[in-house]
Amino acid sequence: MSTVEKQLDDLKAEIAAEIPNDISVSDVTYEGPELVIYTRDPKKFAQNGDLIRTLAGKLRKRITVRPDPDVLARPTDAEAQIRAIIPDEAGVTDLDFHADTGEVVIEAQKPGMVIGRHGSTLREITQKIGWTPEVVRTPPIESATVSNVRNFLKQEREDRREILERVGRQIHREELSDEQWVRISTLGCCREVGRASFILSTAETRILIDCGDKPGAEDEVPYLQAPEANPLNSIDAVVLTHAHLDHSALIPLLFKYGYDGPIYCTEPTRDLMGLLTLDYLDVAAKEGRTPPYESEMVREALKHTIPLEYGDVTDIAPDVKLTLHNAGHILGSAVSHFHIGDGLYNVAFSGDIHYEDTRLFNGAVNEFPRVETLVMESTYGGRNDYQTDQADSEQKLMEVIQETYDRDGKILIPAFAVGRSQEIMLVIEEAMRKGKIPEMPVHLDGMIWEATAIHTTYPEYLRDDLRDRIFHENENPFLSSQFNHIDGGEDERRDVTDGGPSIILSTSGMVTGGPIMSWLEHLGPDPDTTMVFVGYQAQGTLGRRIQSGWDEIPMNGRGRSDTLSLDLSVETVDGFSGHSGRQGLVDYVRTMNPRPEKVLCVHGDESSVQDLSSALYHKFDMRTFAPKNLETFRFR
Amino acid sequence: MSTVEKQLDDLKAEIAAEIPNDISVSDVTYEGPELVIYTRDPKKFAQNGDLIRTLAGKLRKRITVRPDPDVLARPTDAEAQIRAIIPDEAGVTDLDFHADTGEVVIEAQKPGMVIGRHGSTLREITQKIGWTPEVVRTPPIESATVSNVRNFLKQEREDRREILERVGRQIHREELSDEQWVRISTLGCCREVGRASFILSTAETRILIDCGDKPGAEDEVPYLQAPEANPLNSIDAVVLTHAHLDHSALIPLLFKYGYDGPIYCTEPTRDLMGLLTLDYLDVAAKEGRTPPYESEMVREALKHTIPLEYGDVTDIAPDVKLTLHNAGHILGSAVSHFHIGDGLYNVAFSGDIHYEDTRLFNGAVNEFPRVETLVMESTYGGRNDYQTDQADSEQKLMEVIQETYDRDGKILIPAFAVGRSQEIMLVIEEAMRKGKIPEMPVHLDGMIWEATAIHTTYPEYLRDDLRDRIFHENENPFLSSQFNHIDGGEDERRDVTDGGPSIILSTSGMVTGGPIMSWLEHLGPDPDTTMVFVGYQAQGTLGRRIQSGWDEIPMNGRGRSDTLSLDLSVETVDGFSGHSGRQGLVDYVRTMNPRPEKVLCVHGDESSVQDLSSALYHKFDMRTFAPKNLETFRFR
Repeated sequence: MSTVEKQLDDLKAEIAAEIPNDISVSDVTYEGPELVIYTRDPKKFAQNGDLIRTLAGKLRKRITVRPDPDVLARPTDAEAQIRAIIPDEAGVTDLDFHADTGEVVIEAQKPGMVIGRHGSTLREITQKIGWTPEVVRTPPIESATVSNVRNFLKQEREDRREILERVGRQIHREELSDEQWVRISTLGCCREVGRASFILSTAETRILIDCGDKPGAEDEVPYLQAPEANPLNSIDAVVLTHAHLDHSALIPLLFKYGYDGPIYCTEPTRDLMGLLTLDYLDVAAKEGRTPPYESEMVREALKHTIPLEYGDVTDIAPDVKLTLHNAGHILGSAVSHFHIGDGLYNVAFSGDIHYEDTRLFNGAVNEFPRVETLVMESTYGGRNDYQTDQADSEQKLMEVIQETYDRDGKILIPAFAVGRSQEIMLVIEEAMRKGKIPEMPVHLDGMIWEATAIHTTYPEYLRDDLRDRIFHENENPFLSSQFNHIDGGEDERRDVTDGGPSIILSTSGMVTGGPIMSWLEHLGPDPDTTMVFVGYQAQGTLGRRIQSGWDEIPMNGRGRSDTLSLDLSVETVDGFSGHSGRQGLVDYVRTMNPRPEKVLCVHGDESSVQDLSSALYHKFDMRTFAPKNLETFRFR
Repeated sequence: MSTVEKQLDDLKAEIAAEIPNDISVSDVTYEGPELVIYTRDPKKFAQNGDLIRTLAGKLRKRITVRPDPDVLARPTDAEAQIRAIIPDEAGVTDLDFHADTGEVVIEAQKPGMVIGRHGSTLREITQKIGWTPEVVRTPPIESATVSNVRNFLKQEREDRREILERVGRQIHREELSDEQWVRISTLGCCREVGRASFILSTAETRILIDCGDKPGAEDEVPYLQAPEANPLNSIDAVVLTHAHLDHSALIPLLFKYGYDGPIYCTEPTRDLMGLLTLDYLDVAAKEGRTPPYESEMVREALKHTIPLEYGDVTDIAPDVKLTLHNAGHILGSAVSHFHIGDGLYNVAFSGDIHYEDTRLFNGAVNEFPRVETLVMESTYGGRNDYQTDQADSEQKLMEVIQETYDRDGKILIPAFAVGRSQEIMLVIEEAMRKGKIPEMPVHLDGMIWEATAIHTTYPEYLRDDLRDRIFHENENPFLSSQFNHIDGGEDERRDVTDGGPSIILSTSGMVTGGPIMSWLEHLGPDPDTTMVFVGYQAQGTLGRRIQSGWDEIPMNGRGRSDTLSLDLSVETVDGFSGHSGRQGLVDYVRTMNPRPEKVLCVHGDESSVQDLSSALYHKFDMRTFAPKNLETFRFR
């Protein structure tokens, strides 16, 4: 008998001893990080409100209870009962019964009303019909991504269960090594912005954190060939801090190279990763580059994703517990905290963070029970990278919009589809609603509309007050009538160009491709147009060049001249970044309690990481580093 | 056609173009780092004295010329001619013809007389008989090790040629990577004395430097499981700085784990490694431990060894050139200098060094054309680790000997078989010869005699004036009549114990096993005996305990009490160490020109490496590190 079998047998006995005699346990298995208990008495389990929580505490495991298939009510009967229990106002849009696991997925416009106070409605459902309900939100704005991902995962349920079971056994395997050490290897993202990729390893386990591309330098990919990462199938888990391509683009590639394990991230990160990596392949194809992997690999990545919620402490290896926390950067972005061994060591990877609250998100979490080493982004870590207050920035943006409007011009804002676009949308929506700027159309081009739809699907991940507004349809700012989805291609763009004053938000955020290139062609020669940069422009990107004054820019496929003269005004409005400025980064560390012993400053230009590293050292007397790529640090 | 074939074809054409038309080139192959040219005209090659040197310079390769087998004189005829050419005083003791390579190995008491001025006699031989002569020294003291190794290699010639050819093709393979980086990974020897083991790697190549055990902590072996070293068969080359077990013990283990490549070291290091690793297996068996590998693996290691001479610049990978330099520590010990890429980077590993001249050796070399990073031993790097002048130490040792002699006692000196024993032998021999101490027997127990024989086989590796004395048999200090080889086991030891005053040099040097344990039992209770420590005693060893005052020591197999009370006097005479003291280490760096940019301080107790690292930083304003095991540094 394998050690996992033995462990499960022991757990089964322990559970049987804990629960009332009249509740049977027919089987106990692992599915990913969860312990699944099968019972012929799901209703009784549901009646004992605290039973599962008590068990989870005793066993120190995440627990799911599932009914034995033959005690389930028939789906047609069950559906009628579910609809009777859930109030109409919940707006149930779909019910999906999975006999293999006894789960029924309920899609509803108001998931809270399906769940009930402290889960009371869900428990009532189980008590009546035996099935285990799972609730998902009906996107308030229809999202192709969300629906594609959900359908795909539904279709792949069987594969997925097989994967989860395999992962579960891996996580709960016996620890083999008698050595104890903790190391971090840098595969990218050091003294540069882009290709985030790190290996966190112990004698027992290897975890890959992020695997992104480098904007403006397509051939500079993470050093996956480093021995610390090889063979790739020796990696136990991949953790994705957020979906931006400089963190996620090459995650699907791992599956092409033989990785076959889980990806941990939040649910919105999973969906956004699907959206952005498929777009990444599109863009590569359009630019005549050979995409590094096929779309099939994106589906593999989705199939292997195990979504976690902020705050869930999850076993991801025999000696590693992962907890994701809000990072305030983009939807679903997570500071990833690793607890290693039984109190041996704690490491947090900040991913990209915004420490202060923004309109979209609560500020990044920096409270952990313990953290000895922090791997921290430094995008704006430079000694002069102090950002304008967002209020001032908003004021300046409004002035630029007003001035441009007054001369009958258009405002062209290149923006990441995910994050900055929604922040700017909120700013503009409020300004118009409050009459600070005149009402005019706000066109959303590229994936911005779709990304916005995904935001409205996961309001729990947004800032408290914004979440509450979205829960009330008539207050959902993203549904405001000024917003127009550019879905008519070049024709529509030409119409907009020929029309009156308007605001255009378009991808890509660093002007490296996408519809912003069309907008540049249309509006670049127009002196009445203002181009406004509201986000970080990496070295080597066209955005950085335009920002720094280039007025002749290369354009592919425009015949012999191949350059475009820019006559539009160029403005930069800082303060909307998804990244904390220097002050925010320092504050993030200052307010930690306890403070980490060591900080590795990564994800910043060479001078930024050096400056931040030096500042943290001098201010807080901690050991700080500005690593190079391909280094390995040992902490224990 | 493979790229190596193509390269060889190009070289053949280039050679043909360079040499006179009447000299034919029938084939060109690689054997290890050497380019071998086969010719039907070996005599003409030999007549053109500078031809090979000119070719080597043009092609930037080490070149060996071999005759086509069918142009060779018959061995019987050839032998007569060789004996006629070589003067009788050379003392030829063996001739060995190898028809497969056209080589004849000449073993002689005076190799210099076989070689002749600037190789003139060798050339004469080739001109007469076509064969290529190779000269080895007849050991002045018979050495079982040297003769076993030579016989073994003779017997394995065919295997060995196959290995060399494979290695040669590996070395000259096409470089595949377009990345450029240089890394060092620490697999052991950091903040500790022992288990020396480092990986030097580039995008193209991995080199393992040393692979030793840790005295006093048998279970702490190098971290060969680190990803940076795996899989072991991906390692291109092993470089062994010297034969002490804390650098060599686990080299044979590599072959058990799948390594199948070359080991580069000096010829005496090869022989000493054979001697010491076989003894290591013996000791493990005697102590009831399971040896980590079998003696067969020692033979594999010997078979894969490619001996280099000090100063030879040798290609060991497409992008790495290795040069060994005298390290002054023990026979054949080498500072290993790596030139990486075409001027990309230079790293030197000091191995263990003695910077000042000793009786046995010239001081360690620290002159290199360039070296950006130095990995440096720090055994005596502590702030107070200043050593006594050797003259004072010798004076003190003579006083201890005299006092002990005067009370009719015996002097018991635990010593490494290799290095310190011979140094002490030289000191004692001179003191007796000059009448500074009375003549008395000097008993050599354990492998000291055998190790001494190996020293006399390779006088080129000894200090200039000692080398010259050994060349004249009647001045060879190691042949002095006081020296007695303990080859009669316990009986002889008991006789010595019962006899008059004498000096006993016995292994092991840190009192961790070997005949010194018997001597302790015999002489430990004798208050007239003095035990003198003349070498470094590592933490955890019995030597360290006795040195620091323990007078009850555990002895295995002595019945219930299992302890032995010590009544003998204990003295420590510093200054004979094979390691430089603090001053020597600092001087080694100070006198380098140019100085390295970075120094990694390794091979020392935690406080020693920290102290030395800090001292070098403050004195010379260089970047210094005291790495931990399992770290990886990137330099380019």
